[in-house]
Amino acid sequence: MTPQQILDLLQAVASGAVTPERALSDLAELPYADLGFAKLDLHRELRNGHPEAVYGEGKTIADLEAIVERMMKAHGRALVTRVRPEAAERLRERWPESTWHERARIIAFGEAPQSLAGSIAILAAGTSDLPVAEEAAVCAEWFGHQVQRCYDVGIAGLHRLLGNLPAIRQADVVVAVAGMDGALPTVVASLVPSPVVAVPTSVGYGASFGGIAPLLTMLNGCAPGIGVVNIDNGYGAAVLASRIARRSTSIASP
Amino acid sequence: MTPQQILDLLQAVASGAVTPERALSDLAELPYADLGFAKLDLHRELRNGHPEAVYGEGKTIADLEAIVERMMKAHGRALVTRVRPEAAERLRERWPESTWHERARIIAFGEAPQSLAGSIAILAAGTSDLPVAEEAAVCAEWFGHQVQRCYDVGIAGLHRLLGNLPAIRQADVVVAVAGMDGALPTVVASLVPSPVVAVPTSVGYGASFGGIAPLLTMLNGCAPGIGVVNIDNGYGAAVLASRIARRSTSIASP
Amino acid sequence: MTPQQILDLLQAVASGAVTPERALSDLAELPYADLGFAKLDLHRELRNGHPEAVYGEGKTIADLEAIVERMMKAHGRALVTRVRPEAAERLRERWPESTWHERARIIAFGEAPQSLAGSIAILAAGTSDLPVAEEAAVCAEWFGHQVQRCYDVGIAGLHRLLGNLPAIRQADVVVAVAGMDGALPTVVASLVPSPVVAVPTSVGYGASFGGIAPLLTMLNGCAPGIGVVNIDNGYGAAVLASRIARRSTSIASP
Amino acid sequence: MTPQQILDLLQAVASGAVTPERALSDLAELPYADLGFAKLDLHRELRNGHPEAVYGEGKTIADLEAIVERMMKAHGRALVTRVRPEAAERLRERWPESTWHERARIIAFGEAPQSLAGSIAILAAGTSDLPVAEEAAVCAEWFGHQVQRCYDVGIAGLHRLLGNLPAIRQADVVVAVAGMDGALPTVVASLVPSPVVAVPTSVGYGASFGGIAPLLTMLNGCAPGIGVVNIDNGYGAAVLASRIARRSTSIASP
Amino acid sequence: MTPQQILDLLQAVASGAVTPERALSDLAELPYADLGFAKLDLHRELRNGHPEAVYGEGKTIADLEAIVERMMKAHGRALVTRVRPEAAERLRERWPESTWHERARIIAFGEAPQSLAGSIAILAAGTSDLPVAEEAAVCAEWFGHQVQRCYDVGIAGLHRLLGNLPAIRQADVVVAVAGMDGALPTVVASLVPSPVVAVPTSVGYGASFGGIAPLLTMLNGCAPGIGVVNIDNGYGAAVLASRIARRSTSIASP
Amino acid sequence: MTPQQILDLLQAVASGAVTPERALSDLAELPYADLGFAKLDLHRELRNGHPEAVYGEGKTIADLEAIVERMMKAHGRALVTRVRPEAAERLRERWPESTWHERARIIAFGEAPQSLAGSIAILAAGTSDLPVAEEAAVCAEWFGHQVQRCYDVGIAGLHRLLGNLPAIRQADVVVAVAGMDGALPTVVASLVPSPVVAVPTSVGYGASFGGIAPLLTMLNGCAPGIGVVNIDNGYGAAVLASRIARRSTSIASP
Amino acid sequence: MTPQQILDLLQAVASGAVTPERALSDLAELPYADLGFAKLDLHRELRNGHPEAVYGEGKTIADLEAIVERMMKAHGRALVTRVRPEAAERLRERWPESTWHERARIIAFGEAPQSLAGSIAILAAGTSDLPVAEEAAVCAEWFGHQVQRCYDVGIAGLHRLLGNLPAIRQADVVVAVAGMDGALPTVVASLVPSPVVAVPTSVGYGASFGGIAPLLTMLNGCAPGIGVVNIDNGYGAAVLASRIARRSTSIASP
Amino acid sequence: MTPQQILDLLQAVASGAVTPERALSDLAELPYADLGFAKLDLHRELRNGHPEAVYGEGKTIADLEAIVERMMKAHGRALVTRVRPEAAERLRERWPESTWHERARIIAFGEAPQSLAGSIAILAAGTSDLPVAEEAAVCAEWFGHQVQRCYDVGIAGLHRLLGNLPAIRQADVVVAVAGMDGALPTVVASLVPSPVVAVPTSVGYGASFGGIAPLLTMLNGCAPGIGVVNIDNGYGAAVLASRIARRSTSIASP
Repeated sequence: MTPQQILDLLQAVASGAVTPERALSDLAELPYADLGFAKLDLHRELRNGHPEAVYGEGKTIADLEAIVERMMKAHGRALVTRVRPEAAERLRERWPESTWHERARIIAFGEAPQSLAGSIAILAAGTSDLPVAEEAAVCAEWFGHQVQRCYDVGIAGLHRLLGNLPAIRQADVVVAVAGMDGALPTVVASLVPSPVVAVPTSVGYGASFGGIAPLLTMLNGCAPGIGVVNIDNGYGAAVLASRIARRSTSIASP
Repeated sequence: MTPQQILDLLQAVASGAVTPERALSDLAELPYADLGFAKLDLHRELRNGHPEAVYGEGKTIADLEAIVERMMKAHGRALVTRVRPEAAERLRERWPESTWHERARIIAFGEAPQSLAGSIAILAAGTSDLPVAEEAAVCAEWFGHQVQRCYDVGIAGLHRLLGNLPAIRQADVVVAVAGMDGALPTVVASLVPSPVVAVPTSVGYGASFGGIAPLLTMLNGCAPGIGVVNIDNGYGAAVLASRIARRSTSIASP
Repeated sequence: MTPQQILDLLQAVASGAVTPERALSDLAELPYADLGFAKLDLHRELRNGHPEAVYGEGKTIADLEAIVERMMKAHGRALVTRVRPEAAERLRERWPESTWHERARIIAFGEAPQSLAGSIAILAAGTSDLPVAEEAAVCAEWFGHQVQRCYDVGIAGLHRLLGNLPAIRQADVVVAVAGMDGALPTVVASLVPSPVVAVPTSVGYGASFGGIAPLLTMLNGCAPGIGVVNIDNGYGAAVLASRIARRSTSIASP
Repeated sequence: MTPQQILDLLQAVASGAVTPERALSDLAELPYADLGFAKLDLHRELRNGHPEAVYGEGKTIADLEAIVERMMKAHGRALVTRVRPEAAERLRERWPESTWHERARIIAFGEAPQSLAGSIAILAAGTSDLPVAEEAAVCAEWFGHQVQRCYDVGIAGLHRLLGNLPAIRQADVVVAVAGMDGALPTVVASLVPSPVVAVPTSVGYGASFGGIAPLLTMLNGCAPGIGVVNIDNGYGAAVLASRIARRSTSIASP
Repeated sequence: MTPQQILDLLQAVASGAVTPERALSDLAELPYADLGFAKLDLHRELRNGHPEAVYGEGKTIADLEAIVERMMKAHGRALVTRVRPEAAERLRERWPESTWHERARIIAFGEAPQSLAGSIAILAAGTSDLPVAEEAAVCAEWFGHQVQRCYDVGIAGLHRLLGNLPAIRQADVVVAVAGMDGALPTVVASLVPSPVVAVPTSVGYGASFGGIAPLLTMLNGCAPGIGVVNIDNGYGAAVLASRIARRSTSIASP
Repeated sequence: MTPQQILDLLQAVASGAVTPERALSDLAELPYADLGFAKLDLHRELRNGHPEAVYGEGKTIADLEAIVERMMKAHGRALVTRVRPEAAERLRERWPESTWHERARIIAFGEAPQSLAGSIAILAAGTSDLPVAEEAAVCAEWFGHQVQRCYDVGIAGLHRLLGNLPAIRQADVVVAVAGMDGALPTVVASLVPSPVVAVPTSVGYGASFGGIAPLLTMLNGCAPGIGVVNIDNGYGAAVLASRIARRSTSIASP
Repeated sequence: MTPQQILDLLQAVASGAVTPERALSDLAELPYADLGFAKLDLHRELRNGHPEAVYGEGKTIADLEAIVERMMKAHGRALVTRVRPEAAERLRERWPESTWHERARIIAFGEAPQSLAGSIAILAAGTSDLPVAEEAAVCAEWFGHQVQRCYDVGIAGLHRLLGNLPAIRQADVVVAVAGMDGALPTVVASLVPSPVVAVPTSVGYGASFGGIAPLLTMLNGCAPGIGVVNIDNGYGAAVLASRIARRSTSIASP
Repeated sequence: MTPQQILDLLQAVASGAVTPERALSDLAELPYADLGFAKLDLHRELRNGHPEAVYGEGKTIADLEAIVERMMKAHGRALVTRVRPEAAERLRERWPESTWHERARIIAFGEAPQSLAGSIAILAAGTSDLPVAEEAAVCAEWFGHQVQRCYDVGIAGLHRLLGNLPAIRQADVVVAVAGMDGALPTVVASLVPSPVVAVPTSVGYGASFGGIAPLLTMLNGCAPGIGVVNIDNGYGAAVLASRIARRSTSIASP
């Protein structure tokens, strides 16, 4: 609830249009929809710029249907991540116009209401990192950003990265996804001036420890300019990248 | 070394102004100054937007003097972080015009060549987090940004944070510094639309484990839009925040 | 064995009603039922206020039947937690009057012998935390307490929590269940005067590390007044909450 | 800020006594005292029942003096924990009526405004656990509770614990402090019906890992009814115990 | 290879009965049977008192058959631990006189050649610890020891343990198996004078971390006299207990 | 890209045979084949002596077919590690002349173009370590080395190792594979003068923690001369051993 | 309190010599001496065979003096471990007949009342492990055992161990102390038939992690027959070894 | 003891020159010098190619003097690592011809008996890694190798590394020392064909965790051909590099 909204309410009280008791109730009746098992945050977009995405893991299909239905009614669009294939199938049957991104495990309902101009480059160190990279890419596109994918550019074949550097340098923000040694974001951050969002993945085995190794590498990167998100958190990387990218474009776009 | 620089060199070869052998040598003679024990990266600012800062920990005073001298000659300014008080004293004797920020443990030589318009809000959860928060603040100011400090606003006293929210919302990027439970960045990210740089600190005891607890909290934050840097890494937070803030202002400033 | 029981025994010895050898044997014959593979603690309720609950995980259906049968004979009621669906089905066939709480994975036999007046509020941060929250809620109700559920009130949508605060403040004790960042108990404890029982859950992925992240957050919570139980331990939270709540009500109820 | 306070403010707006703009400002001007480097939470006692204690570690003597001065002005009393001896000396010079608890590392200013009837038993497993146990005991007494100390009753000498059991059973809440194997709270919780607050300590060496071993033991305790606080967190244990104890006495005391 | 065996060989060389080259070859031809994929240590019993047991996990049924066959030929008996049910079935078809211990997951071929007099008490804290306790018990019996089982005597019901203490005190060595809080061995070691072999189990959930919690508890036990073996290592506990028990009996038995 | 290649390109520019723009493009068009989802590093063999092997885990069969096809076209041979049986079956149907190494989970296409003279001894501590040891052995043979296998020589039966020592000492490099206590490489390194490549395996249970225990043992080995690779990383051990072995043979072979 | 003692008491009640109330009081008045800050367990020797040793770390000199005085009065001897040099000096001034073992950091008061015949071999892998090995050796000698020291026999120089093997094989129990790779106990246990008490030490650096590496090695040792005690716990090793050794000798000695 | 030595001894027995009893004694009297507190391994050089170096940490000056004296007598040279400055001073007073390498914390006695032709390149990522890199370099030179130092070439300034690549490629083996992100060895291994010895350092702070972060990065490096040694283990890296380098040169040098 923004200060402006509070001010409006207070002015309505002052003018007698709203009683104090009602105002108190309004302050408590905050804008969420209570489904019993979940409380949807319908005004999140107003408050912090992104609609609430639905995390599909561990939710029953019936729960997902109820949530999507409510969100479609409120916003006309919705995004569900980490969807199991069988859940995706059921949701697509009911909303045939939705889009299923298999590698990214995302089902998208509706489209970005407007194109956002800030561009985002998404890098993946290896082919095994693609599901996470695609989760980030699909989300960012659904938010309205232009996304440039650049995959399999890990530091074990440094020339693959260097060959793509000119294109990467043009992005407003770079998302670098890597498992195992996790060194890609550090190398990228030392070569480009834009902020780098680093995403460790649980790809690997042995001393990778489910992503701890690349996570620590990214946190200890000698080249500053890197912000790390959770292991495998492609969605979180997309939101952070979008918040950064929109900065430049909310001003730049005519 | 940018593609443009390579192209220039190649054109000089094509025109006969430079022999192939000399060009090969030039490609090897990259722009760093070799002090024997260290190789200063003098073109880092051109390449990724920030001059190389000097990490003072573990360096002898003689080493620091040699490095600062070489950097002052190249750039006219320098920044040394994690400086021991006795090293600070010696450096200030030699460069009396330098500035010693005691709480931040930083000694700054010269000033920002230009004011950068992107504003940065720096939040600290508790008073024990101040050294790290100040490291971030001093660095960001030295880069040329306007910094708004907002300290002691941890979630155990939620109203202190909420009371400062309007001011925080005006920043282009928020740096949130917290130890112990580390929940401040999540709460902030859920209330503002700008990107949040989260800095865990090693403040605390017991199950804080030297900063692991807030680090994990920040990585697991339910509210997306957060990029985490290393424990106690105020400098890294400032560089990341600056990269983000400059995006908006490289376009916005007249 | 209470001092009173020992005193009674000693007096019987003094009066000659019991021989010393028999008394020694009585002291050894403590009140448990030996099923061979298990020793049921039949007097636990007398000793510390709760009958022994049966932890269903890893027990064969035959074992569970034998244990439930013996407990029903001794107490007329029983509670089995972490029940696999196929075990639940078999137990319900045999005891049709039992109740199966699917989300909580609990099967309950019999009811609370009396209503206990101390009220317990059970909060869950996200919908994925519901199984653990329900385990706590069902147990507490079976003990005889009045339970108020308040789900999906994580700190990423702070207004959802604040909107429910007046109701939460009326409880004698608050159980706060949360995974991922685990910050809910800290925020609650800073806003209410009652004790808070914090339950980390293994919900989440990546750097959540099976619940370590919220566990550490809860232990490091800046707001005091929180007692933490094991990850996913809804039953343990209910017992602790019940011990607290009964304090106030063992006096208050007429 | 309680709903009642908001209601009062809204009614003043409705009556014209307060303008909407001023009300908005009031909502922002929440009750804390800003010392620049710290924001004291002056209404914490109203909100959650305990005045804010000052954590002395890492604070300069000047900071501590400023904070204590402000708290004495607001409340007439203050409590500083984890005080270094040299800081204690300076504070006692200035406030000669304060009390220095050396083993507990606490300096107390003023006394409990009223005696609280709920009694707290504080157990320590070994003599090395005394500093933490005393921190809990001194805090609880300063809050106004009656405290019963029972030290050196670890499970390696079970008869020492059993011999003190009758006294322990009379407390409304038991605080059990233990390092190394950390088994004391489990044994106690299986023998008494009252809630047990478990405090792991960093006492020990080798595989104790600074308190991780007893922390895990306490979280895994087979006997339910235990709430765990952070390693060495005597103060936190006292606050939790006080919240529990006051429940029973707010009703019981005439 | 014992010094005596080397001496015999050298004397044969000195007497001309063996050539130096042949003696060197003999020294290399050490007493193991090479199956290609495994080298069976046939003289282990001579060297350290126990025949080599076969660890069944991860071995194909064909491998197990080949190993058992070779061991039966050499020793007339064999012991295979951690056997999958389907492997057990096949081995029993071929060796119908073998014995399958389902709970212990052991298949035994042949019997102890002689009864060993040292007695071993095996305690389990909970019913979930039985598979590990039974692994220890079956192995110890197969070695030739008398075993006294005492199950479900965890410290959450202390009277169950105390009631069985007289019997436990008569054993030459006590094996204490426990998961979760793992406090059983410490309590036992404080009450009996015999050595205690502690076995942590992976039973439990949450902060048990697959047995780390009880492992640490046992290593940190305040009562000395405890030797810890690996998590779930019932076989290792049996061997250690047997080595201890035989000490007393190798002298005592007529 | 080697300095010589750059020099050639520059000379072509100098001679006018190549335009500067084209040279820049050539520098960017580095030698990899872009399959869309992967960028094959076709010149890796030139650059660091080994062709790029394909890590089969997590790749679809279609991906594997596309990669193998492209590699066969470029090099006439390929090596895929960590192949699932069903993927192996499909690949062998299409390339019947390929070889499937079941225990090593490797499918090999083509043979070593030449025999390399440096010999490699591969030791495994137990039979459960064979899959990793075989991965190393098959890779090293495919590279062209002579491999001597020596399995089941763990330190629990020291004479098995000592009996094979003469043969082990003749190898140019020793690969020692071990799980559980992981002590084999240390013992070997103290007995032979050649470098030892240590491979921890995830074999074991309990406090082995998926290979952490042997990994730490190997890193802490008192006998120097050991280089450790990742847990279960037989392929990496083979590459390192090959790099070492080829040193001696690139000179020695006529 | 033994069953015999309870029986005696009960018989006194039956005969009227003791009132029931007094008997109850006697059952509570267990045999410890309460010093206020510590409760000395004076009957531990009767109960489990060793007098209580005093752990010197973290105790004030005054505390140590009070404890030693009380123990000397009760038993005529005492043992204090982990003594700081300045505390040792003070204690020796007061009890000039005490013995200070500098390397072992032990001060011993009085001597073993009788020679115990079971022999103990104490092995140390490196010279840095001597303080821990000496702690074990001095304690075992003070208990009354014959101790054979065998130091610097780590597996990096296997012949040093093998050369001492005949002597080691004659001991009733072997204590093996090792840091870094911690492989000594496994090798010893595979070569001797007696039980092996393994003591990891915090000696080492890097990936030794304060003794975790050797601790894990010992827990994972492939050769069974090993019981592990806490890191650096020489005293605990001595108690366990003594409990084992006394088994054999309580029968064997004439 | 080599097979040849055993054969010689056996032949002496066969010829009557040595009695069997004496031969047995000789087999036991293995080639080490027993100083009481240490057993020097005087034949280590014969067995595995390097004389035993002395680890100075934790040894008294008197111990070091005794060890050095004995080694000088046996070999005419010695190497002590991790020497404290005050110990170095005393040793240099007694052996004025020794050399003190301050940065490497090494004191060297005597020189390499012969120059070894295999060359070693030693890389350090940052200036803080120099002590470890110098430890490796000084050791390798003392062994007799030619060493090429290349410092401050971390991946945050990739051009510094690339500029030195031609020289690095000429070494027979590369030692890469790095803290923090630890990515240097992976990048190097992808660019050169020689084996890479990776040394993590404890340089860094926060999530570096004393060197765990770079250790994990190196173990997970995507480019194969890397062998990792313990954190800060410059000496171990030198021994491994020497074992590798000598391979090539034992053949190559005329």
